[in-house]
Amino acid sequence: MPTTKQLTHLTSAGHAHMVDVSAKPATKRTAVAYGRINMLPDTLAMIVSGSAPKGDVLATARLAGIMAAKKTSDLIPLCHPLALSSVKLDLSPADNCIEITATVVTTGPTGVEMEALTAVSAAALTLYDMCKAVDRGMCISNISLKHKSGGQSGDYNAQD
Amino acid sequence: MPTTKQLTHLTSAGHAHMVDVSAKPATKRTAVAYGRINMLPDTLAMIVSGSAPKGDVLATARLAGIMAAKKTSDLIPLCHPLALSSVKLDLSPADNCIEITATVVTTGPTGVEMEALTAVSAAALTLYDMCKAVDRGMCISNISLKHKSGGQSGDYNAQD
Amino acid sequence: MPTTKQLTHLTSAGHAHMVDVSAKPATKRTAVAYGRINMLPDTLAMIVSGSAPKGDVLATARLAGIMAAKKTSDLIPLCHPLALSSVKLDLSPADNCIEITATVVTTGPTGVEMEALTAVSAAALTLYDMCKAVDRGMCISNISLKHKSGGQSGDYNAQD
Amino acid sequence: MPTTKQLTHLTSAGHAHMVDVSAKPATKRTAVAYGRINMLPDTLAMIVSGSAPKGDVLATARLAGIMAAKKTSDLIPLCHPLALSSVKLDLSPADNCIEITATVVTTGPTGVEMEALTAVSAAALTLYDMCKAVDRGMCISNISLKHKSGGQSGDYNAQD
Amino acid sequence: MPTTKQLTHLTSAGHAHMVDVSAKPATKRTAVAYGRINMLPDTLAMIVSGSAPKGDVLATARLAGIMAAKKTSDLIPLCHPLALSSVKLDLSPADNCIEITATVVTTGPTGVEMEALTAVSAAALTLYDMCKAVDRGMCISNISLKHKSGGQSGDYNAQD
Amino acid sequence: MPTTKQLTHLTSAGHAHMVDVSAKPATKRTAVAYGRINMLPDTLAMIVSGSAPKGDVLATARLAGIMAAKKTSDLIPLCHPLALSSVKLDLSPADNCIEITATVVTTGPTGVEMEALTAVSAAALTLYDMCKAVDRGMCISNISLKHKSGGQSGDYNAQD
Repeated sequence: MPTTKQLTHLTSAGHAHMVDVSAKPATKRTAVAYGRINMLPDTLAMIVSGSAPKGDVLATARLAGIMAAKKTSDLIPLCHPLALSSVKLDLSPADNCIEITATVVTTGPTGVEMEALTAVSAAALTLYDMCKAVDRGMCISNISLKHKSGGQSGDYNAQD
Repeated sequence: MPTTKQLTHLTSAGHAHMVDVSAKPATKRTAVAYGRINMLPDTLAMIVSGSAPKGDVLATARLAGIMAAKKTSDLIPLCHPLALSSVKLDLSPADNCIEITATVVTTGPTGVEMEALTAVSAAALTLYDMCKAVDRGMCISNISLKHKSGGQSGDYNAQD
Repeated sequence: MPTTKQLTHLTSAGHAHMVDVSAKPATKRTAVAYGRINMLPDTLAMIVSGSAPKGDVLATARLAGIMAAKKTSDLIPLCHPLALSSVKLDLSPADNCIEITATVVTTGPTGVEMEALTAVSAAALTLYDMCKAVDRGMCISNISLKHKSGGQSGDYNAQD
Repeated sequence: MPTTKQLTHLTSAGHAHMVDVSAKPATKRTAVAYGRINMLPDTLAMIVSGSAPKGDVLATARLAGIMAAKKTSDLIPLCHPLALSSVKLDLSPADNCIEITATVVTTGPTGVEMEALTAVSAAALTLYDMCKAVDRGMCISNISLKHKSGGQSGDYNAQD
Repeated sequence: MPTTKQLTHLTSAGHAHMVDVSAKPATKRTAVAYGRINMLPDTLAMIVSGSAPKGDVLATARLAGIMAAKKTSDLIPLCHPLALSSVKLDLSPADNCIEITATVVTTGPTGVEMEALTAVSAAALTLYDMCKAVDRGMCISNISLKHKSGGQSGDYNAQD
Repeated sequence: MPTTKQLTHLTSAGHAHMVDVSAKPATKRTAVAYGRINMLPDTLAMIVSGSAPKGDVLATARLAGIMAAKKTSDLIPLCHPLALSSVKLDLSPADNCIEITATVVTTGPTGVEMEALTAVSAAALTLYDMCKAVDRGMCISNISLKHKSGGQSGDYNAQD
């Protein structure tokens, strides 16, 4: 139970601010986020079956995720801008869904959880966009942090 | 079952493109999207209880959603840029979660589903960012289209 | 005295939103904004005297203003994105200052006051940036709306 | 009198360029900027009096300032992109105005004066935007650098 | 010979401005631009031969072109923001090069030549980026307007 | 012949990703890129002859190049964001063309070739934009890397 923890993005007066990380050393940090988009079996089949060019659906979502990771500090008001060292998206067709995993690495003073979560979200939204003409009922879910390493707060691994 | 439907964002050769909407009239279109972020009871209490300034958490997420709606065509590769007429975000504390509803309106040649879904996603990510120091296990889910009106394809209302 | 007026950017619950302009017709609208940056006589002399290439200082500030006008809805959270028809910046050396006037035109459902004010601000900030190595005490002031025409609320002309 | 100083943002040919800071070490730098927006007493009362949700006006302006600080190098043509360590905005109602102070910190090769000044400007413009329906005569003024520390050129404190 | 023509992006005083298009009707306009990137035979082979996933190189460049078309008014200082109706990129392997053709459509008050040319440029730059580890001597050339229709100035077709 | 080289921007599965540079040290890196835009003699004369203010054409293109360099990682999907130390554009009228050279410097883990090439491209596109009313047949060509230093892969100088 987080008894002594606080919402660090608020000042003592309760105002939003970008917290000061100038005293933190730049160290290597990694974050892995996950999410999925559920869809009709027919929708999934249109994406994964058939000829090679259909790969453009997954390729488009993958790139949307990579590019969104780079825009995280522009989207999330209190995020620090970070020079990302690596962004990788993995999109895997699964049971009536496409599973998305994003891995982001930086060498910086703060972590890249938000970058990984943003990449997953943008990839999922792009899949929604590309398939919405055939399936408006798709649902994006389970967006969460799977793993985090580096930084003062230590490693984190989500419980399954 | 979408037997004759196609993934309109792919050309006949299977390549991603931004579909031509130049023949579509500019009409009023509305979309409502929903999502939620699940969190620990203590985390929720830190956001909603207490003095007024804590309102900054919800105010920050609300603004992040509004501003993200305006960036949708920059985030989602094949989205058309649209002049949005209205963006409204509603964030409601519920059972171990905050529920997010975004309503977007435009007068344009294509719909604003993606703008509404993007607004919900950005608001949820911002809540994650502001609370992650106390609760890394938060999970964003149920991001989906609730309602859509306007345009050739007719109205849509999600089934509960 | 604005007895019955309200802050339209807040909902009845007091929450920020982008107000709905979908019922407003797209009409021609013009706004003129003004501002100035005060500086030491020597600083002003470095900008305006001398050979032609020094024109790059004013040319840079002018372009910064034009480009910032196009980013207004990205900077001001509740501004509607608008397709600007024209942006013109006038920078005039005056008494220990450079005076900046921006004129913006659109055909749209809402006015361009913010675009004109943003253009003036960005041009002034750019002048500060280019001259700060020689004069840190420069001061940007008098940023205000001079004229507005078009739209339901009628014309406005600032009193001198 | 700056006899030997030059406009460093111009080459010897008088052309604008982004000056080379590659030889400068990355050190901690802080800048504090100030500005205010003058308004009618009734306008000020609408912002500060009344129930808590009105806080959304100040919260919106505060966030606009924080987010604009992160866009400084995109707005000011010759500014270097910097990884900001901290951005904090303070908005205080005063005599017929709201006073805005922005404090920005980085660890980098060049200072953050422009980031602080840009944050103040964007916060002031956002207040104008949110209140313009009731008070078009608002005026933004006194935008200036109050303090600067770090870097080769030494500390700076504005004279009152 | 353009005897009476002028550089319309300069005022009579020679200053850059965004020309006023508010008197021009919104009509359908199309532009087609072309360019190519020359490369070593081995480089071309790495892109086009082999298994399907290699399609990611061309898919990435195609998307970069589409997304860049949407950013044209952010990149080209005096370009008007336009709501694009369609963007399509065609990348074809040819003799020691990849040929790029971009087709852009809008319904607006001004043409989309710059959007088509920007799309070609961004696609070519992206191919350079993806292949530079194996071939630094690649060269982007022949970026030019092939066709333009719509608007007062009439149709244009480049001579071969 | 690049026998053992690979397209590093693709994973072993052939998917685009942003390659991991976290193990690379931040060192000083410089890149010089070149390009030109060919035009009619009359067009060139309109840019370079006459009174000083015409300098606004070249000044505008120069700034477009500088600002585009800062947006490289936003335009080129797999580019790493880099804190640029210096950007300089040189535009020289030559035989029926304007020659553009961009020099970019960073201290970072990866090179700035793409930033230099992007700067050249944006400057050339801006010249096209400003002159297209008088000369639609302009052609951008010879965009290539001239020089690169710093980093593990050693120096590179293009052969003439």
